[in-house]
Amino acid sequence: MLDSFSILPTLQIAFVVSDTPPRVNIRHNKCHTFGIFEKSPSEVAEKMDKEENLNNGEDVPDIENDGSLNGNDEEIGRYWSQYSERNMTYAEPLLVKRINTTSQIAIVGSNLCPIESLDYEFLEAFLVYAGLNMVLGAAAAALCAFIAPSAAGSGIPEVKAYLNGIDAHSILAPATLFVKIVGSILGVSAGFVVGKEGPMVHTGACIASFLGQGGSRKYGLTFSWLRHFKNDRDRRDMITCGAAAGVAAAFRSPVGGVLFALEEAASWWRSALLWRTFFTTAVVAIVLRAGIQFCSTGKCGLFGEGGLILYDVGSSQVSYSAGDILAVIVLGTIAGILGSIYNFLVDKVVRTYSIINEKGPFFKISLAVTISLLTSCCYYFLPWIATCIPCPSDSTVTCPSIDESGEYKSFQCPPGYYNDLASLFLNTNDDAIRNLFSPKINKEFHISSLFIFFAAVYFLGILTYGIAVPSGLFIPVILAGAAYGRVLSRVFEPITQLDRGLFSLLGAASFLGGTMRMTVSICVILLELTNDLYLLPLVMLVLLISKSVADIFNKGVYDQILKIKGLPYLEAHAEPYMRNIATRDVVSGPLMAFSGIEKVGNILHVLNTTGHNGFPVIDEPPFVDAPELCGLVLRSYLLVLLKAKNFTRERVYADPSILENISVLDFGKAGSGKGVKLEDLDIQDEDLDMYVDLHPITNTSPYTVVETMSLAKASILFRQHGLRHMCVVPKSQGRPPIVGILTRHDFMPEHVLGLYPDIKHHKWH
Amino acid sequence: MLDSFSILPTLQIAFVVSDTPPRVNIRHNKCHTFGIFEKSPSEVAEKMDKEENLNNGEDVPDIENDGSLNGNDEEIGRYWSQYSERNMTYAEPLLVKRINTTSQIAIVGSNLCPIESLDYEFLEAFLVYAGLNMVLGAAAAALCAFIAPSAAGSGIPEVKAYLNGIDAHSILAPATLFVKIVGSILGVSAGFVVGKEGPMVHTGACIASFLGQGGSRKYGLTFSWLRHFKNDRDRRDMITCGAAAGVAAAFRSPVGGVLFALEEAASWWRSALLWRTFFTTAVVAIVLRAGIQFCSTGKCGLFGEGGLILYDVGSSQVSYSAGDILAVIVLGTIAGILGSIYNFLVDKVVRTYSIINEKGPFFKISLAVTISLLTSCCYYFLPWIATCIPCPSDSTVTCPSIDESGEYKSFQCPPGYYNDLASLFLNTNDDAIRNLFSPKINKEFHISSLFIFFAAVYFLGILTYGIAVPSGLFIPVILAGAAYGRVLSRVFEPITQLDRGLFSLLGAASFLGGTMRMTVSICVILLELTNDLYLLPLVMLVLLISKSVADIFNKGVYDQILKIKGLPYLEAHAEPYMRNIATRDVVSGPLMAFSGIEKVGNILHVLNTTGHNGFPVIDEPPFVDAPELCGLVLRSYLLVLLKAKNFTRERVYADPSILENISVLDFGKAGSGKGVKLEDLDIQDEDLDMYVDLHPITNTSPYTVVETMSLAKASILFRQHGLRHMCVVPKSQGRPPIVGILTRHDFMPEHVLGLYPDIKHHKWH
Repeated sequence: MLDSFSILPTLQIAFVVSDTPPRVNIRHNKCHTFGIFEKSPSEVAEKMDKEENLNNGEDVPDIENDGSLNGNDEEIGRYWSQYSERNMTYAEPLLVKRINTTSQIAIVGSNLCPIESLDYEFLEAFLVYAGLNMVLGAAAAALCAFIAPSAAGSGIPEVKAYLNGIDAHSILAPATLFVKIVGSILGVSAGFVVGKEGPMVHTGACIASFLGQGGSRKYGLTFSWLRHFKNDRDRRDMITCGAAAGVAAAFRSPVGGVLFALEEAASWWRSALLWRTFFTTAVVAIVLRAGIQFCSTGKCGLFGEGGLILYDVGSSQVSYSAGDILAVIVLGTIAGILGSIYNFLVDKVVRTYSIINEKGPFFKISLAVTISLLTSCCYYFLPWIATCIPCPSDSTVTCPSIDESGEYKSFQCPPGYYNDLASLFLNTNDDAIRNLFSPKINKEFHISSLFIFFAAVYFLGILTYGIAVPSGLFIPVILAGAAYGRVLSRVFEPITQLDRGLFSLLGAASFLGGTMRMTVSICVILLELTNDLYLLPLVMLVLLISKSVADIFNKGVYDQILKIKGLPYLEAHAEPYMRNIATRDVVSGPLMAFSGIEKVGNILHVLNTTGHNGFPVIDEPPFVDAPELCGLVLRSYLLVLLKAKNFTRERVYADPSILENISVLDFGKAGSGKGVKLEDLDIQDEDLDMYVDLHPITNTSPYTVVETMSLAKASILFRQHGLRHMCVVPKSQGRPPIVGILTRHDFMPEHVLGLYPDIKHHKWH
Repeated sequence: MLDSFSILPTLQIAFVVSDTPPRVNIRHNKCHTFGIFEKSPSEVAEKMDKEENLNNGEDVPDIENDGSLNGNDEEIGRYWSQYSERNMTYAEPLLVKRINTTSQIAIVGSNLCPIESLDYEFLEAFLVYAGLNMVLGAAAAALCAFIAPSAAGSGIPEVKAYLNGIDAHSILAPATLFVKIVGSILGVSAGFVVGKEGPMVHTGACIASFLGQGGSRKYGLTFSWLRHFKNDRDRRDMITCGAAAGVAAAFRSPVGGVLFALEEAASWWRSALLWRTFFTTAVVAIVLRAGIQFCSTGKCGLFGEGGLILYDVGSSQVSYSAGDILAVIVLGTIAGILGSIYNFLVDKVVRTYSIINEKGPFFKISLAVTISLLTSCCYYFLPWIATCIPCPSDSTVTCPSIDESGEYKSFQCPPGYYNDLASLFLNTNDDAIRNLFSPKINKEFHISSLFIFFAAVYFLGILTYGIAVPSGLFIPVILAGAAYGRVLSRVFEPITQLDRGLFSLLGAASFLGGTMRMTVSICVILLELTNDLYLLPLVMLVLLISKSVADIFNKGVYDQILKIKGLPYLEAHAEPYMRNIATRDVVSGPLMAFSGIEKVGNILHVLNTTGHNGFPVIDEPPFVDAPELCGLVLRSYLLVLLKAKNFTRERVYADPSILENISVLDFGKAGSGKGVKLEDLDIQDEDLDMYVDLHPITNTSPYTVVETMSLAKASILFRQHGLRHMCVVPKSQGRPPIVGILTRHDFMPEHVLGLYPDIKHHKWH
């Protein structure tokens, strides 16, 4: 089911991207037919060949006929360089310099074709390209702005937050699901530097939550057999499986999905969960395989492409030299630094954008459009800087490539030449990554082109995240990392024998490690993406280094986004200073407690005046001889009980028949924002003085900690059991049986440091 | 460090196994020179060729000269079959039938060579083979019997038990480490059907524990910088990493090691642990790579062999048909059943053996010798059943193979022929598995040979586990599974296109799933063993099926062994009936409690009379107005305090200077069996009436549960926090501040069901 989403974005990309290069080619061809293109490189080459032939009777095949330079481009190059060495006073100095400079190519390009015609076509092509992108981008932003704001961004932080116990409204609502799918398709199609991986994780989680809350009453989709999942733990498990399925479908990496759910997504892990996620991703894998096999004939666009392994590197390089290791260590170190800078800048950018986005839908959309325009400019104009490179003679694929996702885009280049930068920019992200990873074509990327591409993707990725569009972070990071690795492979040429494709794979790994700070899951995902097992030790090494280096400076990008969104995320380990605070020092009063048999009026008053979701129930004399803690009662249970109106005139224990008109399922966990609300109750005034017995709905054995327990220890207990409320009981007797209730917010560093500002600097021994 | 162990066993195997086939070949050659071998198959073939040549002038090269049949063995086969069809009344009917029957080959073998000569050589060879095996087996058993009994068996259950919180004596002692290493080498060399994987996991854990307890004072190996690890949690983490390193080194599968530690070994998991195990296995991987690179020239025996990927299958089969899926489903189902039978039989065998082994070292050794003899008989005599197969013409390796670990063993076969069963039996386990996995040679195994091998390995594996020798279960299961898969590949020939090597890989996966019941870790380990990523969906499918089927019948093999060893292993999930028991119903009295400032005499008395390791401390009037629970004090802390003899005449709080003559490190967790003992104390009689203040060494915030909490809920708390003691406090006031203390044993089903025998059958609502 999930994998069907992975097909559409790529389809769209193909559609949008594909319509640019042809236009540009048309320009070139038209010039040619109109005869305006007076001095095409091929003609020049021919002329020179002729002169060469005068000098020495060397015979060179006529290259004008079909413009196919395959086979003797080296020769041409030699001629040209010889030529430029010999007579620098040639008619077209620019053309002579053409080989060894890049900066003047644009001028040359405009020199070859009359400027007005070029200008016209040039702008037309750009307008269509940028226009289409902006329209798509605006549509995506509009969806997010008007229908489901929480669908913007990666979605992985939200899923992380939910699995940590933060049930923020509409994070996993059906509307979010819809916008996430459509918006992600639009966003990727708009040519943004965004991935579809994060959104697919969110999509998987949304679908899981949709099933977990028993369908949606709002949209008339309810399934009775799903009601058994209506409790926190099963929903949490299902959503974990959903996240795993998302990764499994996005990267076609089932085991990686399990590990991602384990390492990054989930806050609580049970052995049963491992088995369930494995089952989920196995189903995903099998469905994927079937889909790919069905689509292998290309009847579903780009979905069939790549097969189960998206970027099959499959190198057989088994031995590394010391130089390789050294190069990899340096690669990892630099990547760690670049990764932490990436996180730092993303942090700043997101904070800035959130200010703009708060101003309203219009600002959201216009921001998205601006970024889209910027992206289009980079993608369209940067390739003009690149030199035209003669097609390799030993190329297995057609060069210049005619299909959308080719390795050799002839952008503004004449036949027989191609533009390496265009084949990176004007391509689907998947194909760009494939080109960077590919070992077989390792001569064709100018280091300048690689560096331009790296810089562009690196900064565009930073600038794009945070706009109101579903946007994943994996692909931008992998793109930047792959380009980075390929750049460094040039630098380390003298000391390393590693293939450049492997280097760019290592670069991608190190960047992922530097930004996301995952280890095992990235390792396995990359393994399943590239099928290059021999590289595993190096990938592990580079991940260790980049993560360790980056951890010095800041936290992982998802944790940062969680902090920006202000979600009360409970860390796995408590802050050190919490060891020096007792739980009683942080409980926030006043404590609202109910007696075992409570007046309806009091309950309503408390529910009205406080927002608490859990209340202690205290048994008092005459029912017991000394006040004692009976247990904990939830707001939702109270509401259900009040709605049933099982009240008694006297203050007595209710007979068991009290619950007859309440089914157990009424207490089931409702979807976010669903369930009985205070307004739904119709309590008459005469009811207010009546009593209701809370014992039937009271959890009589809540988790309790003694008031002197250190906050650190309590927070571990709270986190490991996924609690929402924890009762703090007094150490000594003869006092009220409960000191207070701890909730998630009482463990937040902000809260603790707000109470004790100087505790952090205080020295203890 | 760890990987250096993986080299030695294989070396030894090579040595032992290698000395058999040459002897048998010698016999054959001698017969030849003596001219006793009157009707060698080649002569017969020549004769027939001659006749053929009379019939039609076909020219066949003379094959007697060098006995190389390569090139025209198909022809020969054709001739023979034609011949046997034409005249069945040929002089040697057995020889004619030779092609299509197997049962009479032994007779033929003895028929060709005079029985006495054959007998002599035959027995000599067997005696040397079996003798050497028995000596090695006896040595291994003697080591286990006399030095470290706990080194016998796989060791994975013991590591699991330790990580579950069971600090059984000598499980991880240095002596165990030594015996585990040497004994495993001897055991594998003895030709037992055992693996080195389990022992290596145990070895890794032992080394980690050795470092974790700060070296060994007994052997004068102490490192002061290690003393910081002297606490339960760090030791646990290190041992988890050690287990991961063991798997990583054994299978050369670093990621698989991490997952094994997570899925099978560890009971408690923290995100930090993932990162640490990953770091450990990364180091292992890099050291392994270096070692393999260093040994690639073969200067360390078989260690360099196989490279980082032991059995490189690397198929490019990417598409499966419905028939393939169906075949795989059937494969998985049958494997699940066979796997559960395997566990059932292992359970029975181990219980039987443990009775024998308890009788003393002599019985242990003789049992091992018996099994060794049985194994030798199977390995030596079974190959005689097999037909001699002509060497394949397109073989890249020499056939029959001359080196120890060849694919084509010429056992009793003439030159140019080989014995497929011998190439499975008389080979290192690694090479046997490699042969079974290998796709390129998929014509040479007779289905009968495969079935014989499968049956032999299946039952020998069951019979071997439980003898007093370090013995892993992975290799036997993989061997049996691979043979099983290859057998089934013949059965499913008509409906599936899958290569037989892939089938036997799937067979191994399904067997592992059926016995060990792991999923993700087996998946990744097999991935890293075979480098066959395209098969991943099928592997996942087959694992799911076999595990699910096997789980119907019984538990995983390691869990069964844990139960047999009677270790109090805490399951992750509580038994259902525990939901209906309150904690106060299972606490075992009488409760031994100390007051905050206690008489030395009382303490000594309690320590003498009880074996408890934790005691509640209760503050009483006059220090407080009502008795209250101060906290929990550990036996080891009490002993340290008493040793320091900070006693006071009056019953007063001790001044802070009391701890001056005790360093914090004295309270550090000592190695098993180390630490202060009751005998080490020298308490005079006059001290007995003095007081000691327990507050400085009391844990003032132990985990407490209310007496009415359900046992199930309490056990989750106990398990998830890895507690050793849990205080049960009363619900109502005015009673003694503590009801009792729960330890691991109170949660054991045996204990609970002993108290409430009929609760399991009791129906609740």
